[in-house]
Amino acid sequence: MARAHWGCCPWLVLLCACAWGHPKPADLGGQDVRNCSTNPPYLPVTVVNTTVSLTALRQQMQTQNLSAYIIPDTDAHMNEYIGQHDERRAWITGFTGSAGTAVVTMKKAAVWTDSRYWTQAERQMDCNWELHKEVGTTPIVTWLLTEIPAGGCVGFDPFLLSIDTWESYNLALQGSNRQLVSITTNLVDLVWGSERPPVPNQPIYALQEAFTGSTWQEKVSGVRSQMQKHQKAPTAVLLSALEETAWLFNLRASDIPYNPFFYSYTLLTDSSIRLFANKSRFSSETLSYLNSSCTGPMCVQIEDYSQVRDSIQAYALGDVRIWIGTSYTMYGIYEVIPKEKLVTDTYSPVMMTKAVKNSKEQALLKASHVRDAVAVIRYLVWLEKNVPKGTVDEFSGAELVDKFRGEEQFSSGPSFETISASGLNAALAHYSPTKELNRKLSSDEMYLLDSGGQYWDGTTDITRTVHWGTPSAFQKEAYTRVLIGNIDLSRLIFPAATSGRMVEAFARRALWDAGLNYGHGTGHGIGNFLCVHEWPVGFQSNNIAMAKGMFTSIEPGYYKDGEFGIRLEDVALVVEAKTKYPGSYLTFEVVSFVPYDRNLIDVSLLSPEHLQYLNRYYQTIREKVGPELQRRQLLEEFKWLQQHTEPLAARAPDTASWASMLVISTLAILIWSV
Amino acid sequence: MARAHWGCCPWLVLLCACAWGHPKPADLGGQDVRNCSTNPPYLPVTVVNTTVSLTALRQQMQTQNLSAYIIPDTDAHMNEYIGQHDERRAWITGFTGSAGTAVVTMKKAAVWTDSRYWTQAERQMDCNWELHKEVGTTPIVTWLLTEIPAGGCVGFDPFLLSIDTWESYNLALQGSNRQLVSITTNLVDLVWGSERPPVPNQPIYALQEAFTGSTWQEKVSGVRSQMQKHQKAPTAVLLSALEETAWLFNLRASDIPYNPFFYSYTLLTDSSIRLFANKSRFSSETLSYLNSSCTGPMCVQIEDYSQVRDSIQAYALGDVRIWIGTSYTMYGIYEVIPKEKLVTDTYSPVMMTKAVKNSKEQALLKASHVRDAVAVIRYLVWLEKNVPKGTVDEFSGAELVDKFRGEEQFSSGPSFETISASGLNAALAHYSPTKELNRKLSSDEMYLLDSGGQYWDGTTDITRTVHWGTPSAFQKEAYTRVLIGNIDLSRLIFPAATSGRMVEAFARRALWDAGLNYGHGTGHGIGNFLCVHEWPVGFQSNNIAMAKGMFTSIEPGYYKDGEFGIRLEDVALVVEAKTKYPGSYLTFEVVSFVPYDRNLIDVSLLSPEHLQYLNRYYQTIREKVGPELQRRQLLEEFKWLQQHTEPLAARAPDTASWASMLVISTLAILIWSV
Repeated sequence: MARAHWGCCPWLVLLCACAWGHPKPADLGGQDVRNCSTNPPYLPVTVVNTTVSLTALRQQMQTQNLSAYIIPDTDAHMNEYIGQHDERRAWITGFTGSAGTAVVTMKKAAVWTDSRYWTQAERQMDCNWELHKEVGTTPIVTWLLTEIPAGGCVGFDPFLLSIDTWESYNLALQGSNRQLVSITTNLVDLVWGSERPPVPNQPIYALQEAFTGSTWQEKVSGVRSQMQKHQKAPTAVLLSALEETAWLFNLRASDIPYNPFFYSYTLLTDSSIRLFANKSRFSSETLSYLNSSCTGPMCVQIEDYSQVRDSIQAYALGDVRIWIGTSYTMYGIYEVIPKEKLVTDTYSPVMMTKAVKNSKEQALLKASHVRDAVAVIRYLVWLEKNVPKGTVDEFSGAELVDKFRGEEQFSSGPSFETISASGLNAALAHYSPTKELNRKLSSDEMYLLDSGGQYWDGTTDITRTVHWGTPSAFQKEAYTRVLIGNIDLSRLIFPAATSGRMVEAFARRALWDAGLNYGHGTGHGIGNFLCVHEWPVGFQSNNIAMAKGMFTSIEPGYYKDGEFGIRLEDVALVVEAKTKYPGSYLTFEVVSFVPYDRNLIDVSLLSPEHLQYLNRYYQTIREKVGPELQRRQLLEEFKWLQQHTEPLAARAPDTASWASMLVISTLAILIWSV
Repeated sequence: MARAHWGCCPWLVLLCACAWGHPKPADLGGQDVRNCSTNPPYLPVTVVNTTVSLTALRQQMQTQNLSAYIIPDTDAHMNEYIGQHDERRAWITGFTGSAGTAVVTMKKAAVWTDSRYWTQAERQMDCNWELHKEVGTTPIVTWLLTEIPAGGCVGFDPFLLSIDTWESYNLALQGSNRQLVSITTNLVDLVWGSERPPVPNQPIYALQEAFTGSTWQEKVSGVRSQMQKHQKAPTAVLLSALEETAWLFNLRASDIPYNPFFYSYTLLTDSSIRLFANKSRFSSETLSYLNSSCTGPMCVQIEDYSQVRDSIQAYALGDVRIWIGTSYTMYGIYEVIPKEKLVTDTYSPVMMTKAVKNSKEQALLKASHVRDAVAVIRYLVWLEKNVPKGTVDEFSGAELVDKFRGEEQFSSGPSFETISASGLNAALAHYSPTKELNRKLSSDEMYLLDSGGQYWDGTTDITRTVHWGTPSAFQKEAYTRVLIGNIDLSRLIFPAATSGRMVEAFARRALWDAGLNYGHGTGHGIGNFLCVHEWPVGFQSNNIAMAKGMFTSIEPGYYKDGEFGIRLEDVALVVEAKTKYPGSYLTFEVVSFVPYDRNLIDVSLLSPEHLQYLNRYYQTIREKVGPELQRRQLLEEFKWLQQHTEPLAARAPDTASWASMLVISTLAILIWSV
């Protein structure tokens, strides 16, 4: 799990609000949040003074004749994690939460964010800023209509609004006599000036062939073949998401946190390949790898990143049709292509192709999960020894598991910020410890670790929840019900092309049965050294249908506010299922290889089918991870693995009572007969 | 089950196409369908000659300067079953299938319909008509663009296109230089002339208070209260669906088949109640019941049905906001209301309120299901005796069950056309036998009966599948898996406000497990002497979330093309679930009371939980239906009920083997010891 996309779906936001409520921070005597109703207002030290930058922004707005200016939390590529130089909303407001939109008028300034961030916003924003505890464009437009005069203009950076978001603003403002004005020069950037962190400039490198499923030439040919087969005969595909260009050319860099991407666009036409990026970042080897010195249909021409809008506009003058995935295209590109020259799908052909891993990609992703299991098992073994000493805290723990992963072959850092949460902290959504604010791990509390790694061969994401002491009956029950949910969904057999949304309730049924539930989604796609949350695969309503070769996480949980949190997350491959009667059916093959915590399993809640599944899974873990541990001389870990994957035995009271009856009656007869 | 709404959802259409394929009619030597490729064309006797009416229609089109005219299969109220005088598409084409759109240009005429009707269309249409084996507006517009010249006008009756359908045509034609033209006088009606069947004119009557959940005054006050609470403060609610007006005023009639409705609209404003209907159809008692002689806010003013469009247009001139449910409002009403005066929701407040039955309505619906069970049980008992004689066919069977229902108290006819299908016919979607074309019932085949009744207190819908001889192992397995699906969904506990779509896979899991599935939806809402398929409750993606007090059918099935069909359909009430831990959870209470066929249940496939559920359900049937059978002196049926609701015993091989081991070892010891 982690942040991105989990809030896309309205019911999810609702469930989050119900299940997680407002995170209750450690009590700092009520003095940690601002109070704008006193005179002078009370401002904690965590607040950022924004008066000067707001004044400067309003000057820029005046120059452009704007009544209001929208500052979203996005970058130009819909990235889940955005670079520091793109954190415009954080810089102008002081509020650093990952979700929230700011709007500035000539008199007021306001931020809209969801319940996860209300306290943080009150700690970080000065009294220049109103806090609106709502999300979506509707409340923003409702506010705008009362704050700006009729005839007023609302400015925005078209590279920071997706097509959908722009349409939503546009629709809401229609007929209101207020106008949306697209301004390609970002006004916050103008004010930010030289203080703005620089755009990354590290080398962009090609992945070794051993780590790629196909060559870039094969991928380009594949996309061109899809263009030819398409009913509307597009002449070009435009790729805006960084992962699309990274995947297509097997190129990587580290421009943004956790994702190995570089700022880029690709315009792949029927006769040319145009890659928009900073040319100085390519070595001569990489340029040669890309055939960038020629101009034929299989030569990659590198054009400057900043030229993309003008180049697309120029290309669109011809007799062309440009195929885009609307989910990842920003309005700044969309607005320069005439509608009749657009071929739109929700996701580009690259996004759709990338979702299904070929056999080599599958093998690579699986291999990365074996090594990842080694790192996690090393950490769990270490915790078992060190937690009782009272020397481990959430932050040092997170650092250690990141370190263990870093020691694995092909490691390229964590795939998201490690969630290392003890006791009640595990019930908070998206909690991550800091060096300053963390909790000690203890044998008296449950501990949740949600973490993952980037490796050249694959991206991983796994959650395990453990207890080293004596868990309560309720903790064991909740854990076991979460486990049953994980098993029930993992072993489900379903028709090909079923949408994840239709089956995700199987991960909840065992919890529902007892009146329990969890307030987040059930899983997301994952990439080969790409995004840890790789769309469009997953279990939400806007995910695409399941197909053989996709990878998804399966991660039910349960959260008891103020007490503990449980999540059991595995990554699984969608495979063909063998059914009694012939048909096109699918099921999952779990590729995360870390045993669950036996200390938390209440075997009496498991059916024989659950036990059989679990023991088979344990056998697989032994087969996959055991030899790797032995090869690496990690003998303590090997022993631990053997112990933790011992087959679980069913509790079968009926059979047992028959057996004892048999013994007793036999004895009785024997006694009687002697 | 039956026809309506099952095709709303694209995946359903797709599944239908896969699972049901093309119905294979009885072979009539290949001479029963037209052949337009010979000269002269071959036309079977079932074909209707449409040359004269088409010529007349084209004259009307010329008068209106139209290049094309669309003839949908709808009436002005989105009714599932439409009256004969509304069967314009059937009359002009000859093709009487319930789904299909016709379009006529000056040179060509064409029909678009789905696979269920392709053969029927080829039997009924002459060679004036092209048959297009596609559905939806896109293929129609694609065809139109090639058939009519640029600048051409496409006429349509705005009362026969829903807002959505109109938008879909409009969007597809945008920028094509072809224009949609709304013409309120229906051109087919002009041609049809005096041959057109008359509009029904029977009395409109008020339901007795014993059969209503609330008085119309209470319902009106309830809707007005929702208007007041609404954020956009509508001044009026406009009701276009016939069931809305029927429900609101507790009025009924029989204008259309199977649904006890009358042609009407209601404009309920904050200060008036305007009912658009044929005034001559109300008796003086009914007029007095409606307070129709006064003009206050609780007086129903009856205005002529034909005046609705003008009246709405006039009302919309004021400072008003009209609240509509877009799903049931036709473009003919929508186009006369200025957009800024519209308050739109998918469903009107009446539709939403009606979906949740109050306690009296729940009791009424349950009571009707007890009597309905008596009728079905009488039929099943009769079949058991008569099928072996070889004297029963599908059609006479259907007539008999309708007759038995007609003998029940408060009966008002069947709630849809009885599906009485033997052997391979049960695998055909929407099969109904006719006097001419039907199959004999036999002890060697399975028989599927899907039928329901209209009663003053409630509407029923139940499907049972039976076999009087020796079913094959596969038939028993398939039947039992369908039964498990029914049970698994019926006993599911799920959070309040869960959408049916999220849980319907529980009705499929047991089938999926073996590589089996069914190609239709899993259930639909049902009314109190209203629609048998009452929207918006159900398990499809466009249904609303489940809430306490809703009724829905639960009806998994399995269809083996060319061999047999199984469906087990019950109606269930959504009730609060008691969970171990407190929370707002729901489950289903089945209110259909007819036992399943023991002859088709393979007990070894059932878990102890399934058996427990089944035996509890059988106990409920005994308690509900037993006394009614006894009271009515239906002693043979009572005996049958007792036999068919005997508790089912588990097959417990392990326990049994332990028991035999015990006996054997005891004997061995005894023998040895003597």
